[in-house]
Amino acid sequence: MFFASDNTGPAHPAILQALVAANQGYMASYGADPIMDRVTRKLREVFEAPEAAVYLVATGTAANSLLLASMTRPWDTIFCTSMAHINEDECNAPEFFTGGAKLTLVPDTDGRMQADALKASILKENNRGVHGPQRGPVSLTQVTEKGTVYSLEELQMLTGIAHGFGLKVHMDGARFANALAVLGCTPAEMTWKAGIDAVSFGGTKNGLLGVEGCIIFDPAIAWEFELRRKRAGHLFSKHRYLSAQMEAYLQDDLWLEMARSANAACARLVAGIKASGVGELAYPPQANMAFARFPRHVHQRLFAAGAVYSMYDDAVEDGPPDELLLARLVCDWSMSPGNIDRFLQLLAG
Amino acid sequence: MFFASDNTGPAHPAILQALVAANQGYMASYGADPIMDRVTRKLREVFEAPEAAVYLVATGTAANSLLLASMTRPWDTIFCTSMAHINEDECNAPEFFTGGAKLTLVPDTDGRMQADALKASILKENNRGVHGPQRGPVSLTQVTEKGTVYSLEELQMLTGIAHGFGLKVHMDGARFANALAVLGCTPAEMTWKAGIDAVSFGGTKNGLLGVEGCIIFDPAIAWEFELRRKRAGHLFSKHRYLSAQMEAYLQDDLWLEMARSANAACARLVAGIKASGVGELAYPPQANMAFARFPRHVHQRLFAAGAVYSMYDDAVEDGPPDELLLARLVCDWSMSPGNIDRFLQLLAG
Amino acid sequence: MFFASDNTGPAHPAILQALVAANQGYMASYGADPIMDRVTRKLREVFEAPEAAVYLVATGTAANSLLLASMTRPWDTIFCTSMAHINEDECNAPEFFTGGAKLTLVPDTDGRMQADALKASILKENNRGVHGPQRGPVSLTQVTEKGTVYSLEELQMLTGIAHGFGLKVHMDGARFANALAVLGCTPAEMTWKAGIDAVSFGGTKNGLLGVEGCIIFDPAIAWEFELRRKRAGHLFSKHRYLSAQMEAYLQDDLWLEMARSANAACARLVAGIKASGVGELAYPPQANMAFARFPRHVHQRLFAAGAVYSMYDDAVEDGPPDELLLARLVCDWSMSPGNIDRFLQLLAG
Amino acid sequence: MFFASDNTGPAHPAILQALVAANQGYMASYGADPIMDRVTRKLREVFEAPEAAVYLVATGTAANSLLLASMTRPWDTIFCTSMAHINEDECNAPEFFTGGAKLTLVPDTDGRMQADALKASILKENNRGVHGPQRGPVSLTQVTEKGTVYSLEELQMLTGIAHGFGLKVHMDGARFANALAVLGCTPAEMTWKAGIDAVSFGGTKNGLLGVEGCIIFDPAIAWEFELRRKRAGHLFSKHRYLSAQMEAYLQDDLWLEMARSANAACARLVAGIKASGVGELAYPPQANMAFARFPRHVHQRLFAAGAVYSMYDDAVEDGPPDELLLARLVCDWSMSPGNIDRFLQLLAG
Repeated sequence: MFFASDNTGPAHPAILQALVAANQGYMASYGADPIMDRVTRKLREVFEAPEAAVYLVATGTAANSLLLASMTRPWDTIFCTSMAHINEDECNAPEFFTGGAKLTLVPDTDGRMQADALKASILKENNRGVHGPQRGPVSLTQVTEKGTVYSLEELQMLTGIAHGFGLKVHMDGARFANALAVLGCTPAEMTWKAGIDAVSFGGTKNGLLGVEGCIIFDPAIAWEFELRRKRAGHLFSKHRYLSAQMEAYLQDDLWLEMARSANAACARLVAGIKASGVGELAYPPQANMAFARFPRHVHQRLFAAGAVYSMYDDAVEDGPPDELLLARLVCDWSMSPGNIDRFLQLLAG
Repeated sequence: MFFASDNTGPAHPAILQALVAANQGYMASYGADPIMDRVTRKLREVFEAPEAAVYLVATGTAANSLLLASMTRPWDTIFCTSMAHINEDECNAPEFFTGGAKLTLVPDTDGRMQADALKASILKENNRGVHGPQRGPVSLTQVTEKGTVYSLEELQMLTGIAHGFGLKVHMDGARFANALAVLGCTPAEMTWKAGIDAVSFGGTKNGLLGVEGCIIFDPAIAWEFELRRKRAGHLFSKHRYLSAQMEAYLQDDLWLEMARSANAACARLVAGIKASGVGELAYPPQANMAFARFPRHVHQRLFAAGAVYSMYDDAVEDGPPDELLLARLVCDWSMSPGNIDRFLQLLAG
Repeated sequence: MFFASDNTGPAHPAILQALVAANQGYMASYGADPIMDRVTRKLREVFEAPEAAVYLVATGTAANSLLLASMTRPWDTIFCTSMAHINEDECNAPEFFTGGAKLTLVPDTDGRMQADALKASILKENNRGVHGPQRGPVSLTQVTEKGTVYSLEELQMLTGIAHGFGLKVHMDGARFANALAVLGCTPAEMTWKAGIDAVSFGGTKNGLLGVEGCIIFDPAIAWEFELRRKRAGHLFSKHRYLSAQMEAYLQDDLWLEMARSANAACARLVAGIKASGVGELAYPPQANMAFARFPRHVHQRLFAAGAVYSMYDDAVEDGPPDELLLARLVCDWSMSPGNIDRFLQLLAG
Repeated sequence: MFFASDNTGPAHPAILQALVAANQGYMASYGADPIMDRVTRKLREVFEAPEAAVYLVATGTAANSLLLASMTRPWDTIFCTSMAHINEDECNAPEFFTGGAKLTLVPDTDGRMQADALKASILKENNRGVHGPQRGPVSLTQVTEKGTVYSLEELQMLTGIAHGFGLKVHMDGARFANALAVLGCTPAEMTWKAGIDAVSFGGTKNGLLGVEGCIIFDPAIAWEFELRRKRAGHLFSKHRYLSAQMEAYLQDDLWLEMARSANAACARLVAGIKASGVGELAYPPQANMAFARFPRHVHQRLFAAGAVYSMYDDAVEDGPPDELLLARLVCDWSMSPGNIDRFLQLLAG
C-alpha cells in the first residue's frame, strides 16, 4: 500500500531490458550516442516539432531549472502558483540556476493558475522601470501539484496572456503522460499548439529509473541550454543509459500505457473512497493523484496496517479522533488493484 | 579500438544485474532506500571512516562541484593545476556551484601539483585583506589528468602545506580505483590518512552507468552538501538505482578488479608503443591513460582504420607528415587484449 | 511641491561643510581613515553597543543586501512583507547578493508584519527536509513602506518569534531616524534591545548625499560583511567622504533634528488633508510619509499646478473624475510649511 | 610623502564647489536629474560618440564589474593579465557580477598584454564544445597596473585579435586621463576608434570624491547595464551628487589638467630616483605610477621618516640590508614638488 509518490515504484521491466541491450561495446559519450539520435527523431515526431531541440537529464529539478534558466534573466520574476514544485520542493533550485531570479506566486483554483490572477500578477510587476523585478516566463505544471489537469482551453488562455506581454511559457511536465492520457489529445496540442515554449517530458515518475526529456520549441535558446546543462553537472558522460531509457519509454507507446495504468489505479482508489463514505476528497482527482481528508483515527488505522502516504498536518498522533486531516495518495503505473482494494478495506474499517 | 575515454565503454554486467535486482516493488525515495543504508555502511568500512558522510551523485562534475562548494566561500580561490578537470572541462561548474569563487592555477610536473609551487601560490593570495581573493581549498586529481599518480608521500606533503595554512583538501577521484590499484595501498591511506578532507569516489569511468560516491571526512559540512545537492537537482528521487550500482561496485572488490583490468590494458598498450619505436610517450603512464606523440601520417593511418582517441592539435589533416602530434589513449575495464594488439599492429604500420 | 520621495531633497548644508572640511591632504583609504574611527566610536555609543561592527555604504539597497546576505544562506528564505523594499524595489538585489535565496511574503496590516502571520509563515517552511527552502532571517522595515511605525512591543513580539525558531532579524532602517523620532525611544531600544540583530541606519533619505550605516550586533558575521562589501564594489577607496557625512550627521543630533522636521512637515500635511475633506487617508501616517486617495480630477489639478508625487494607478488621465486614486506623499527634512500650504490650497480647490 | 595610492589624496576644490552648487532644492532621483542630462551630452561629445550609453557609478570595482557582466555570460572566460585589478584586487567581484565566469590570465610585458599571448590564450579556450569555458571579452587596463601605457597601435592590435574571434573588449580606465595625457590623443582614438567596446572613465583616482563614468559604445547592452546597476545597489537615489562631480570634472578640461599634474609629479619623482643612483626602476614609468626597487635599509629609512607607499615583499623588517625590495609609488593630482623633493632627499640618504 505504497501511495507516497510515483517515484517510490519500480521501473518498467522493458526499461531495464533496454539498459541491458544498450550495454554493448563502446559508444560515443556526452549525448553523441546513436541511440540519442533516434530518440531525438522520435521525440520530434511525437511532438510534431521537427525543429525542436531535445535533451535528456536525469531529474525533474534539473529539467525545470535548466529550462527556466534558459528563458529567464537574473532580474526577472517567474510566474507560478504557490504550490508549484519549483517553488515548494526544489530548495531554491530555480533561484540558483537563474542566478537569482524571483518567483511571483499567482493564485490558483485547485492547483490550476487562474487567468485573471495571472494577468493581474503580470500587470503588477515590471511597471517601475529598473526598480522592480522584470517580467519573466510563466511556469505551469501539468498535471498540477493538486492532481488536477489544465484543459487545452485553459492552457491556451494562460499562454495567450503570457504571450500578450511578450513572456514565454514553461510547462513542468513531471506527469506529462498522465495529463495527456486524461485529455486524450496529442503532445503537440498540449504543448506548442497551446502556446507552450518549452516543456519537461517527465519519465521518472512514470516508470523510468530517472530520465526527463527537455523539449525546447524555440531553438534559439538550445545552445544556452546545452551550456547550462554541462555547467550544472547534468550532462551525462555515459549518456547512452539515458537515451536507452527514453527510447524504450517511447516504444509502442509504453509511456502512455503506463500513464493510463496509473490513472486507472487512481480512479479505482477514488471511486472506493467515495463509496466508503469515509472522509472527503479535497480537489477533483483527474489523473494519478488524489487528495483526501480522513478522520485522524482512520489515518492511525491505515498507518498501523502499513499504508504509506504523505500527510500535510503534523500531529497525526495527538488530537481529536474525528478531526479531518489531509492526505496525498499517488498511484504509479505498477499499482495493483489488490493493493488498492486492501487499502479501501482498511479505510472502510 | 576505442581509446577515447573510459566513459565510452560499457558498464559491467554485474551492475546491470544489480539494477534488475533492485527493481522490485516500492522503495523509499531520495536516498532513504535500504540499499543506501548498506552502501553507507560499506563505504565507511572501505574507507575505515565510521563517521564519514557518504552521498551518491550521478556525474563527476556534480561530485567535484558539490564537494568543493561545500568547502569554499564565494570570495575564495581554489588551488588546482591548469589541466585540472575542474578548470578545463566543466564549463565553469565550480564557479557556478560556489557562487563565484576563483581558481588559482598552480604549476605541475606531469600533471602532479608541485609542493613548492603550491606553497608559493598560497602565499601569493590572501595577503591584501579584503582586496584579493581569500585562500580556499586545494584540489588534487588522483589519477592526474596526465595519467600520472601521486605517491602517498606527495599527497602528504601537499596536504601538509594546505593544512598548515588552514586550508582543506579535495581529491577529484574520478579514477580513484585506478590510482589505488597502482599504489597498492588502502583507501584510507590514500585519503584521510594522507590529509584529504573530502573525495569523489569515481565509479562512472570504471564500469558503472553513472555513479560517483562523495565521501566527506568532516561531517560538519555534510548537511550543507545535502542542501546543495538538492538545490542543484542532483538528489535522485529513485535513488535506489544509484545505490544498487554502488553496492554491486563494492561487492567482492569488483571496483578494484575493473581498475586493475584497465591498468593492465594500458600497460600492455604502453609496452607495445615502446616496442614499436613509433613516436614517444609524453608523460610516464602509471594507470589507465597514456599520452603519446605520433607522426601525423601515423595518426592518419590509425584514424583511417577506425581507431578512436582524443587529439590535442587541430590539424591532423594538414601539415608535415612526420610532425609529432599528441594523443590521449585511455583504456577502460573492458578493453580487450585483441583490441590493443590490433591498434599496435596498425601503429607499427 | 516635491513630495515624490525623501531622496529628491537636498542634503543638509552641514553635511557639505563636513565634506569640504574632510577634503584636506592625504588620508588612508578603504575605511582606514581617522574620521571612520571616530564614526565607529560614536555609532557604538549612540547604539550603546560597544562591540557592534559598524560599516558605511552609499545606498540603501547595498546596505540591506549586504546585511541580509551575511545572515542568509543561498537555500534559505527571507521572511518579509509583500511591499518590503527588498521585495518590490531592488530588482532582485537580495536574491543576487545572497546567491539565490528566496523571499517568503508574510501578510501585513498597514505595512506592519503581523506576528501570527509570521509564525504561520515560518511554520510552513522548512518542514520538508532538504526539499523546501530553509528558514532564513526575518526582515522588518522601520518606518514601514506604508508610513506606519512598529511599536517596541510589536518589534519584540516579532523578534521573539524569529528567535524562537533560531532565526535572525534584520531591520531595514532607511527611515530609522523618522521612526525613532516617533517612538521617542533610544536607538538601542529600537534595535538590539528589541531583538534586532543587524540594522541599516539610513542617512540618504534624511539629509545626507548618500550614506547608510550598517550596524551588526553579532560581530561573528562582520568579516563576512567586509568581504561581501568589497566583492560587491561597495567599499569606497576615498572612504573619508562617507565617514565625514556620517560624522556630521551624528553631530549634535542633526539626524534627529532632520527627522523631526520631516515628520512635523508630514503631520502638517496630514492635518491639512483631513481638514480639507478631500479624499481620504489610506493608512494611519505616523512618520514622514502619507498615503491618500484623491479623486482623479483633484490629482489632475495638482499635477497641472506642478505637484510631484507617486501614484499607484496607471490611468490618471482617463477615467471617472471622481474615482479615488492612491497617492504617496513624502516629506523630507527640508520641506517648508509654505510648500505644504500651497499644496493644501490646491487640494482644497 | 603619501605615495600609497592616488585614492589617498583629496578631491579638487572645484568638485566640492560643484557639490555645494548642486545642493539646491528638489531634483529628480535615480539619474533623472538635469545635471546628468548635461553630463551625458558632454561625455558623448568628449568621446565623439553620439549614440553611446553613459552611466555613473561610485567605485571602480562597480564600473568594471558591471561593464564586464553586461558583456559576459556565466560560462565565459574573460581574458586579462595576471596583475589586472579585476583579477587581483576585487575579491572575486567579476566572478560575482557575471554569475560565475572565469578569468583566463594572459601573459604580459611590463603590464601590457601581449598580442601573440592573447591570440594563443583565445585559441586554447572554447575548442571543446560545451566542456570548456566559452570565450568571453578581453579586458585591458589603461594605464596598466604596472604604470605603463598601451600605445594606440598596441590597442588596435589587441582589439583586432579579439574582434577577429567575435569577442568584445573592455577597458579598465581607472587612470584613463593619465593615459590620455601621455598619448596626447583624443578619447575616441583611445577607445572606440581603437576597438574598445566599453570603458570605465575613471574619476575617483583623479580628483573626484568617487565617480566613474561607464561609457558603452554598443547601446544593445545598455538596458542590461541599467538593470545590473540597480540590482547591485549601485544606482544612486540622490544621483545629482554623482552627476555634479562628473560635470565639474569635465568643465574646462579639469580632468586632463589634474592628470597632467599627476603625471608631471611622477616624472619629477622618476627623474630624481634615476639621479639618486639608489635602487632601480622596475618597469618604464609612463604615467603617474612608478615601481622601484630600493635596498631594504633605504626602505627602513624612508618609512621611519614618514613616507607612505605600498610594498610587494613581506619582510621589510628582517633580511639583508642591501636586498632590493619592490615599491609602488603613486602620484596624485595634488602631489606637490616639495613633497617629492623631500622624498628624494631621504632616498639619497
